[in-house]
Amino acid sequence: MTFDPASLKFDANGLIPAIAQDAASGEVLMLAWMNVEAVARTLETGRVTYWSRSRQSFWVKGETSGHVQRLVEMRLDCDRDCLLMLIEQEGPACHTNRRSCFYTALREGAEVEIQVPMG
Amino acid sequence: MTFDPASLKFDANGLIPAIAQDAASGEVLMLAWMNVEAVARTLETGRVTYWSRSRQSFWVKGETSGHVQRLVEMRLDCDRDCLLMLIEQEGPACHTNRRSCFYTALREGAEVEIQVPMG
Repeated sequence: MTFDPASLKFDANGLIPAIAQDAASGEVLMLAWMNVEAVARTLETGRVTYWSRSRQSFWVKGETSGHVQRLVEMRLDCDRDCLLMLIEQEGPACHTNRRSCFYTALREGAEVEIQVPMG
Repeated sequence: MTFDPASLKFDANGLIPAIAQDAASGEVLMLAWMNVEAVARTLETGRVTYWSRSRQSFWVKGETSGHVQRLVEMRLDCDRDCLLMLIEQEGPACHTNRRSCFYTALREGAEVEIQVPMG
């Protein structure tokens, strides 16, 4: 079945959550949002492109920072309302310079930072 | 710093996306939603509890199916608006009886099922 990005289920704002997972290590790096055109561009270019909710514009990941994400494979879930992307991440995925945005763990009721910024 | 679920950033519907990842294999199994009380219950009980948007009620994962999710560790992202849960999954995570909800891959422009239902 040929894939049509418009067949995904977008929320009231026309967005779908997209999880970026390191294709090699399996580490979950971040979650951001895409609209239908961002999904199409990501598939077309192989460069992960989100929709920035704060800036209300396309966000080609790494365009300014160099920390690009190359798409290895896109997957969708059973409800067609979430995407999982296996990617190759150049450098840190997080704007804090950490590899993953999920660097804070809850341990014994407290927030613990489990990753340091990359050198 | 002691963690307060109310310090997370919830969307206009009072919800936050929560990714469930197999703690042992690293496989991403599903994404569902939590409100502040679901986060608190999950941390308190160690049984992953979502908020069902379709039923508008708490959803203790596996309560009827037996396919429970035991929380190993909860993590939050840099923006405090997404959760990553490392879990132990009993049986399939997906209602289609597949291990993961992300069983559809996009390959050469087509949808390909890459997982079969569990026996």
